[in-house]
Amino acid sequence: MRILVTGSRGFAGKHLVNLLKKNKNEVFGIDIFPASNEPSELKVDLRDSQSVSEAVTQTAPDVIYHLAGIAFVPDALTHPSTLFDVHIQGTLHLLEACLHLPSLPRFIFISSAEVYGIAKEQELPFKENSDLRPSNLYALSKLMGEQLVQYYGNVHGIRWVVFRPFTHIGPGQSPTFAASGFARQLSRIALDKAPPVLFVGNLATKRDITDVRDIVSGYASVLSIASFPSGKIFNLCSGHTVSIGELSEKLIRISGFETEIKIDPSRLRKTDVPITSGSFKKAELELEWRPTIPLDQTLKDLYQYWISTQ
Amino acid sequence: MRILVTGSRGFAGKHLVNLLKKNKNEVFGIDIFPASNEPSELKVDLRDSQSVSEAVTQTAPDVIYHLAGIAFVPDALTHPSTLFDVHIQGTLHLLEACLHLPSLPRFIFISSAEVYGIAKEQELPFKENSDLRPSNLYALSKLMGEQLVQYYGNVHGIRWVVFRPFTHIGPGQSPTFAASGFARQLSRIALDKAPPVLFVGNLATKRDITDVRDIVSGYASVLSIASFPSGKIFNLCSGHTVSIGELSEKLIRISGFETEIKIDPSRLRKTDVPITSGSFKKAELELEWRPTIPLDQTLKDLYQYWISTQ
Repeated sequence: MRILVTGSRGFAGKHLVNLLKKNKNEVFGIDIFPASNEPSELKVDLRDSQSVSEAVTQTAPDVIYHLAGIAFVPDALTHPSTLFDVHIQGTLHLLEACLHLPSLPRFIFISSAEVYGIAKEQELPFKENSDLRPSNLYALSKLMGEQLVQYYGNVHGIRWVVFRPFTHIGPGQSPTFAASGFARQLSRIALDKAPPVLFVGNLATKRDITDVRDIVSGYASVLSIASFPSGKIFNLCSGHTVSIGELSEKLIRISGFETEIKIDPSRLRKTDVPITSGSFKKAELELEWRPTIPLDQTLKDLYQYWISTQ
Repeated sequence: MRILVTGSRGFAGKHLVNLLKKNKNEVFGIDIFPASNEPSELKVDLRDSQSVSEAVTQTAPDVIYHLAGIAFVPDALTHPSTLFDVHIQGTLHLLEACLHLPSLPRFIFISSAEVYGIAKEQELPFKENSDLRPSNLYALSKLMGEQLVQYYGNVHGIRWVVFRPFTHIGPGQSPTFAASGFARQLSRIALDKAPPVLFVGNLATKRDITDVRDIVSGYASVLSIASFPSGKIFNLCSGHTVSIGELSEKLIRISGFETEIKIDPSRLRKTDVPITSGSFKKAELELEWRPTIPLDQTLKDLYQYWISTQ
């Protein structure tokens, strides 16, 4: 199958491209910062409709995975215009480009669990039909992305699936995200490159955390089951919630060192959602997907990733 | 009260500015094509956040009426990127600019009855809580505008009202809209500037039609009632449905001439919504608003407008 992945140099994008290639697909990537030595990866700014249109025409995919976006929420929130340009116009440009292909590709949109917003504990875990109350512009722009995809499905017959991944972590993630940042700090302490102090943000924040490799196997699953589940939305999550405090303690245990924990005010997110917790029952039932990598294994791999790249 | 009207040179915009001035408000306008002889009107392209921010800071309004947009749906649909830039980014820029004022202005967003989409007859008339199934990108972008406004209300405390006007007609409307185009053609026939043939589009299309002067009095009503109905959505409509065929016949009767009717294929809208019909009960109950100008009067005024401007 010919598959186009947007955001192919992103954290999940790289893992997805690897998996799809392993599954014998012909994979093309577009990214604003493509790999220089990779001819199947094109440099595309999603905000430029002409460039998006050319990339889609040129690669003529059977399937598009649309992952590209501004992944780090605090960055996204400080530039609302750019956020909406990338998330709304970018998605619009891709969908419009699909209409000009000889046959319509299937469109898999990677939304975010952020669309659910801030829940009362009794509303958890979030299911796909839970209320949507975006509590930041990142979440709102992702919800609007879903609406665009559904619109092109209804009006133009594009077959689509939407995924709402919850927090995912693993090797290759930017250290601006908590778990990866902790693992990087600890790897530097282990290698005597930093004093034994781990700087942290909101320790009480609880997240439903999944390994990125499990998440992308969820994305890929829609292509391996008997029929494409068009018009459906799926959570991808572990169903287990862990606090950022527990995460940091687990990572310290993995590092094998005694390390002091200090709060770094610059790491405290202002609009933090206190808890996320999801149900993956629908994906399990319809996609035969479930997470397989235990959190401790993910954290070990993440720590080793940073040890090996220091 | 200091009031900022976006799209102040538009069809409804001009009528609203006149009414608000008559009601002793200090009114500022922004428009991409402002009147050259009107110092209270600023040239602003809503897509330019800097220029929007300056206009909002400079005029420091107590109330913003956000009417600006691409009003003619067929134009909007041929340029989806521009449509979303103006409707989404434009609304975003205005709302962001509000956050920097010393006190938050009230924000009145003019959406559209198009957000309801195509209904089965038994679902009519549309009420504010009817299902929303946008059937074109214009409608979808208006719905997303509503969502942006609601978001800034929830998260930042901006007090807002959303109006969903149904079709409105009257003096000053562009002849690209059916009723105004018919009246213009008939005025030219009356003045011997054209042969006695009226070119029309989809005659069977049925619309709930209201006089533009009634519509803008609905917009203004939220400022005259005892308390601002923040967080509410209101239909504005006549509750009466008339076909485009009947409209053309009424206008021919008003002109007093015998005129042949011919279908002009270029006037046939591809994605036409076959019928719109709304309920204004909520506006009547909460805003003490109801339409007052009979359709025949509106059509006479529209015809006279074109007679006087030929």
